[in-house]
Amino acid sequence: MRPSSSPSDGLFSALLCHGPVAAEVDGAAWLRALLDTEAALARATASVGLVPHDAAQGVVDACADASAYDQSELGHSAALGGNPVIPLVRAIEERAGAGGAHVHHGATSQDVLDTAMMLVAARARAALSEVLRACVAAAAELAARHRDTVVSGRTLMQHAVPTTFGLKAVGWATALQGCADRLAAIQLPVQLGGAAGTLASYAGRGREVSSMMAADLGLASSPLPWHTARLPVADLAGALGTTAGAVSKTALDVVLLAQTEVGEVREGHAGAGGSSAMPHKRNPVAAVQARAAARRAPGLVATLLSCMEQEHERAAGAWHAEWVPLSDLLASTGTAAAWLRESLEALEVDVDRMRANLDDRASEAAAAPVAEAITPLLGRAGAHDLVAEAIRTARATGTSLRAVLLRLPDLSQVLTPERLDQLLEMTLDVGEAGSLVDDALRSLPSAATSAR
Amino acid sequence: MRPSSSPSDGLFSALLCHGPVAAEVDGAAWLRALLDTEAALARATASVGLVPHDAAQGVVDACADASAYDQSELGHSAALGGNPVIPLVRAIEERAGAGGAHVHHGATSQDVLDTAMMLVAARARAALSEVLRACVAAAAELAARHRDTVVSGRTLMQHAVPTTFGLKAVGWATALQGCADRLAAIQLPVQLGGAAGTLASYAGRGREVSSMMAADLGLASSPLPWHTARLPVADLAGALGTTAGAVSKTALDVVLLAQTEVGEVREGHAGAGGSSAMPHKRNPVAAVQARAAARRAPGLVATLLSCMEQEHERAAGAWHAEWVPLSDLLASTGTAAAWLRESLEALEVDVDRMRANLDDRASEAAAAPVAEAITPLLGRAGAHDLVAEAIRTARATGTSLRAVLLRLPDLSQVLTPERLDQLLEMTLDVGEAGSLVDDALRSLPSAATSAR
Amino acid sequence: MRPSSSPSDGLFSALLCHGPVAAEVDGAAWLRALLDTEAALARATASVGLVPHDAAQGVVDACADASAYDQSELGHSAALGGNPVIPLVRAIEERAGAGGAHVHHGATSQDVLDTAMMLVAARARAALSEVLRACVAAAAELAARHRDTVVSGRTLMQHAVPTTFGLKAVGWATALQGCADRLAAIQLPVQLGGAAGTLASYAGRGREVSSMMAADLGLASSPLPWHTARLPVADLAGALGTTAGAVSKTALDVVLLAQTEVGEVREGHAGAGGSSAMPHKRNPVAAVQARAAARRAPGLVATLLSCMEQEHERAAGAWHAEWVPLSDLLASTGTAAAWLRESLEALEVDVDRMRANLDDRASEAAAAPVAEAITPLLGRAGAHDLVAEAIRTARATGTSLRAVLLRLPDLSQVLTPERLDQLLEMTLDVGEAGSLVDDALRSLPSAATSAR
Amino acid sequence: MRPSSSPSDGLFSALLCHGPVAAEVDGAAWLRALLDTEAALARATASVGLVPHDAAQGVVDACADASAYDQSELGHSAALGGNPVIPLVRAIEERAGAGGAHVHHGATSQDVLDTAMMLVAARARAALSEVLRACVAAAAELAARHRDTVVSGRTLMQHAVPTTFGLKAVGWATALQGCADRLAAIQLPVQLGGAAGTLASYAGRGREVSSMMAADLGLASSPLPWHTARLPVADLAGALGTTAGAVSKTALDVVLLAQTEVGEVREGHAGAGGSSAMPHKRNPVAAVQARAAARRAPGLVATLLSCMEQEHERAAGAWHAEWVPLSDLLASTGTAAAWLRESLEALEVDVDRMRANLDDRASEAAAAPVAEAITPLLGRAGAHDLVAEAIRTARATGTSLRAVLLRLPDLSQVLTPERLDQLLEMTLDVGEAGSLVDDALRSLPSAATSAR
Repeated sequence: MRPSSSPSDGLFSALLCHGPVAAEVDGAAWLRALLDTEAALARATASVGLVPHDAAQGVVDACADASAYDQSELGHSAALGGNPVIPLVRAIEERAGAGGAHVHHGATSQDVLDTAMMLVAARARAALSEVLRACVAAAAELAARHRDTVVSGRTLMQHAVPTTFGLKAVGWATALQGCADRLAAIQLPVQLGGAAGTLASYAGRGREVSSMMAADLGLASSPLPWHTARLPVADLAGALGTTAGAVSKTALDVVLLAQTEVGEVREGHAGAGGSSAMPHKRNPVAAVQARAAARRAPGLVATLLSCMEQEHERAAGAWHAEWVPLSDLLASTGTAAAWLRESLEALEVDVDRMRANLDDRASEAAAAPVAEAITPLLGRAGAHDLVAEAIRTARATGTSLRAVLLRLPDLSQVLTPERLDQLLEMTLDVGEAGSLVDDALRSLPSAATSAR
Repeated sequence: MRPSSSPSDGLFSALLCHGPVAAEVDGAAWLRALLDTEAALARATASVGLVPHDAAQGVVDACADASAYDQSELGHSAALGGNPVIPLVRAIEERAGAGGAHVHHGATSQDVLDTAMMLVAARARAALSEVLRACVAAAAELAARHRDTVVSGRTLMQHAVPTTFGLKAVGWATALQGCADRLAAIQLPVQLGGAAGTLASYAGRGREVSSMMAADLGLASSPLPWHTARLPVADLAGALGTTAGAVSKTALDVVLLAQTEVGEVREGHAGAGGSSAMPHKRNPVAAVQARAAARRAPGLVATLLSCMEQEHERAAGAWHAEWVPLSDLLASTGTAAAWLRESLEALEVDVDRMRANLDDRASEAAAAPVAEAITPLLGRAGAHDLVAEAIRTARATGTSLRAVLLRLPDLSQVLTPERLDQLLEMTLDVGEAGSLVDDALRSLPSAATSAR
Repeated sequence: MRPSSSPSDGLFSALLCHGPVAAEVDGAAWLRALLDTEAALARATASVGLVPHDAAQGVVDACADASAYDQSELGHSAALGGNPVIPLVRAIEERAGAGGAHVHHGATSQDVLDTAMMLVAARARAALSEVLRACVAAAAELAARHRDTVVSGRTLMQHAVPTTFGLKAVGWATALQGCADRLAAIQLPVQLGGAAGTLASYAGRGREVSSMMAADLGLASSPLPWHTARLPVADLAGALGTTAGAVSKTALDVVLLAQTEVGEVREGHAGAGGSSAMPHKRNPVAAVQARAAARRAPGLVATLLSCMEQEHERAAGAWHAEWVPLSDLLASTGTAAAWLRESLEALEVDVDRMRANLDDRASEAAAAPVAEAITPLLGRAGAHDLVAEAIRTARATGTSLRAVLLRLPDLSQVLTPERLDQLLEMTLDVGEAGSLVDDALRSLPSAATSAR
Repeated sequence: MRPSSSPSDGLFSALLCHGPVAAEVDGAAWLRALLDTEAALARATASVGLVPHDAAQGVVDACADASAYDQSELGHSAALGGNPVIPLVRAIEERAGAGGAHVHHGATSQDVLDTAMMLVAARARAALSEVLRACVAAAAELAARHRDTVVSGRTLMQHAVPTTFGLKAVGWATALQGCADRLAAIQLPVQLGGAAGTLASYAGRGREVSSMMAADLGLASSPLPWHTARLPVADLAGALGTTAGAVSKTALDVVLLAQTEVGEVREGHAGAGGSSAMPHKRNPVAAVQARAAARRAPGLVATLLSCMEQEHERAAGAWHAEWVPLSDLLASTGTAAAWLRESLEALEVDVDRMRANLDDRASEAAAAPVAEAITPLLGRAGAHDLVAEAIRTARATGTSLRAVLLRLPDLSQVLTPERLDQLLEMTLDVGEAGSLVDDALRSLPSAATSAR
């Protein structure tokens, strides 16, 4: 959900603002974060003696209950000065009694908005991490259960050689865990600088105030104000875009495996996935929605990166342009991950169909090991071309590849019928897939795999 | 405003959802458009005899009052099937009495959503056109009033040769009018195809039904269903992105001209543009907000274009991914234009400051005509280098450029003191600027210039 | 190909710079266009008497042979002044004899670069149009040949109801033709303004000079200089992005239909589509490459749109940032279209496989007409749910859908065995597909369909 | 430079492919990386006994000299199979003698291309790091030299309160160092999986082979193949986009400070920055080019992120789509940084102008401390409004702010003339700027600051 509105209303909200992340970036969440920031500033300025303790307590009390503030009215007043902190500070003053004169001490609007943005991001990240953890666990569970389930490997959407569904699923899990790790590693710093970033109104205690606020709010400290050095926003953008991409890859695999002609997986949600016109359809709705939500990410990342070009000590537009896209990117990525979780947790795997799809093409899949076997005789190019020709012959004449190959006189030395049969058996060779799954599962955090 | 929420609440809404366009793309607007589409379908199917007239009337009546439907509930049910049309059709059925069995005749969800999307776009476009018309009028008014106001031309943000503020402003007006023309030229077609685009449930009358719906809803007709041929969405994306760019260019010029050191324009809104920390500031808040809103456009356009790659007869995600970005793009562009309108309509132009800024550098600006004058003697390169050197000398020695040039013995033939003084006068030459303004104002629609 | 290099070298060039468009945007093409622009300027300034005819002829002669200029040297010198026109003008002067003093009369670098950019775009557009024409012809040919070939309609990548391959193909053709029409409609204007856009060095004849250049170069005239009003660039970006999207949609359909399990089409290029590791593979290489090239477009469009925010009379970076992305966008779109042409012109359609894939699911596809039939009895929602339940029962019990339905007591009134059989036959109903194909083919330009 | 061509030719190459990074991503660099990868594979497969040592040495020898291979011919052949590895392997075989049968053992094209891509990225990153180090050093040098140079802080491009040029410059240095740190932290892994990622042709030794290759090539190891889990590409995209943003912010500040009316800095390159039409101009060409190159980044990042959605075990287009955009992103970011280095290393700072610009507005700048001083009396809102009103009065009447304020009767208690003068002196208060500079310089790596 975008910051300006509640996610609970709206035609598309349940589709496009799914899961717990959206609620962490809506208007109420931003308001809470702004109030928390002003409260932390009051406490910190009191601690260093810049503000009387009573006054600070008045501010803290006035900031305790977000529901006492009218978002809509604040939003309207924001239009006059260009940001919502200006009217919010006035509203806090009215409620802070004797503390009113000490609200927002020495700070500028951007200090409070940037710190609140990091707070919003931190809370949304916590929710997103939980969703990703569940996605990883579901994929890891599939990987463990299907460690040895053979399925066709597909390259350029054509059957290649076999792999295992376990290896596919552990690839999903590992990538999603990689995203969670990247998100967790991002520093989300407090911002405090005053009107031009010099901490001029803090009597030399500004850096202390900033550090205390960071500790109070659970944010990283930032010795240097970062008002127009937007690396924290770019870090978030990059990691969220990466996460959306990993979610999208997994969801695409689900959609492709669920195609009518492939039929190797199916989303198992009772009641979901129907069609208004076609009652027989069983659509992979969750994976489709995951792809839809994730597809918004690259454009939002580009917007946030293009906002890094900020003028002097406060940008004339590029700063204001971050608020909604960052909220949307958090919400979209969170929504995509939440849908993927549903898809994976209820994914029904049709092991028999996987095997049947493979057997239809298994003799052709012998091509690779056969070519490998005759390479010492003919060189890589020659071997490749000969096998490709043999496949064309087999297809055109309705003969088996085995028969065509055995008929070729040049190959009799290296390719006895026994050796060929051995190679054809090898067509189901899945190499080190099992060990790769085991190793990868072991390298996931225990939380992800404890479900098994 | 994004479709899932009301634009009236929220901390950032008045900043980021400014002007009349946002309300045309919110959840209520989408719901109205969906209901209008179902009503038009009912009327059309009745006209060709596929549905009884009474039944159709029941549907039309049930679709008349959007407030009878609960967006939030519809949104929640939408999650099961992947789009809000499925529960909406059921909700209409409940209200349509005997018409219930004839709601949504032969259509698929996408038919209704795509048509509603075009309807939403058409209504938002009308609102946006009105805002753009006002922007053009304001810029044209400035151009007419300042047809002959000399101002420094600036290239790479350095003083170049003079131009007029009229020419600057008529350039804004012409570009904005060009955007309005592009938007107006876009075809917004009805979509009707049925489950797979074959119009299979219309007994051979499908194309007629589609045409009648188009006429009824004021949309373009589309002989061929365009369910996965998303040119109308791409057309909108391109024209909106172009509009946002033209708005942004104008707003940037305002911000640059309003810089403290330049001071040639100022936004004249009483009360607006203040700062929470710095009471002396007079920020060009409207232009800043216009830039902020416009900056979202390129990323949103990229998202919509990347959504064109749609599978078969309905995309598994890329279709669903269009709804919010298109709404956001309409709202952002509309918001940017609305802020620009406010900026331009109250723009205060400081003619004296324009002249003063120019005079500070006027003798240097003689460089171009002087170089032109001595080119026949020295060649373009030689002339350019000589004048550049003379400027460096003048700067370094605190001498006037005139004195330095007259001292150069080689130039005495072509550059008499009289000729040089003539050239220095030419430094305020604004060429054909006046005629360019006149021609350009004449080529604007009369509506744009009637205000003058 | 990007402008800075020749497309003939390089590991990826044959893949990523395919077809005739790339050669129209390389360094040599840009150089030709720059020289053509200077020549046109010389002719036009001579025509209005600003430059002696002999001198102009000297300039024209000096601009006639691009191979006389050293791109690499010009490129190197460009770095000093920020664009290649500065050294190019000096190089022309050296070759223009007495005309040397009259090269580039009254123009600024941007005039020449912008006009040359439009010339490059015009020539690349001509090449692209030819490629698109061939794509449309190939798709139209497929549509005509397969007007009545039944194939499964697929929504969300699941079988829906049947359609025809003709209708799919005519959808491709119509969208691609729509792109060609959009590209053809774009105005590509000459740019002439002088140092700050006032035409100050043309003695009042600047607009005439500009018009004459436009006519000479085959460009649109532009009464008002557009140096920082970048609508022509945005127009190109939008139409090229749209074209890439339409190409990509078609290529994706080919890739999906060519999947091993689907097998309904195959790219018929002898020798192409092999794999280094897997000789049995027959990859749809051309469609894959079309998708790869097209995928670059949305990001490039976003870049060009974000470049519209240009300062004052010449941008400090955003102008320079256009040259390569626009060249890349033309080349990528051209490459994508060229690959698609190869894919479509040699596409082998497996009509039997289309029918076989359909029959596997035909009884389920009866769901839609059956639900339609019983809607009067149960309402839309009830009918939908009942049929969905019947399908689940049939699947679970291995019974036919027909048997399950006939066993339901409530339905006996509306669903006699005769009616049900009729409905099951209707499962292959393709509605108005044939007429839609006929209409759409008729609406294509005759060039596109003359091949048939 | 794009991979398909040499950066040394071309009209725009010296502008757009500046500095050492471009040469690390051109066609020759890619070819070297591909050959290095095949050589490493040969060595590793020999080490585990899969390939005879003599044969491996033949391969290694054949891969030693990239100039023996014809890029253009390889590029042409690449078109048949969809990537350049297929013809390259054949070309190596021809040169490898007895080793010919053992080239590319068990690998698939993607293994080699992905590993080579990481190698290209690693080498380009090393070059970029060097450029960034120089940028940081130049900015740090400016910060140290101008630790106490007072300059106007500017927010929304309006004068705010003072800051120091040292604090501005150390902000640039810290952000650029942050980018260098992010780039250095990225893991660039080897890729080895074989035809479908199972390591099926390595007799159980595949993971060992992969690890040995990583060590050999100086890449990170990757226990699990990442063929369609594109996190390494996304990591690069994010960090490069972030770097381009930080470069762009710095370059924008330079361009803004160099504006004619501001004149606080100037690029000091002898000979550079001229204009073809205006000899008096001194353009900040390097900063302008830095902005131009950096502006390409967000769109390229979006393209790479949108390529993450890759099908199954090898993507049908999205994989091929990465090669050029990643090369372009490395080159663009490298070019931007190289131009910024030139800008910063020769930046001339006009300390007097900084002070003069400030004094013009200093009495207005007293607004903030005055408001702070009277807040206990009037509350924040009241104080703000009163001072804003006093400024309006001072401006309108041509009176000094001091006089206006002293005349206000309500303020006499808190605002004696002495206190007011004290506050007006405070207008040059730069708070903790000096300490912030000292701390930030200390936290930079010693390499960056050793120049001082």
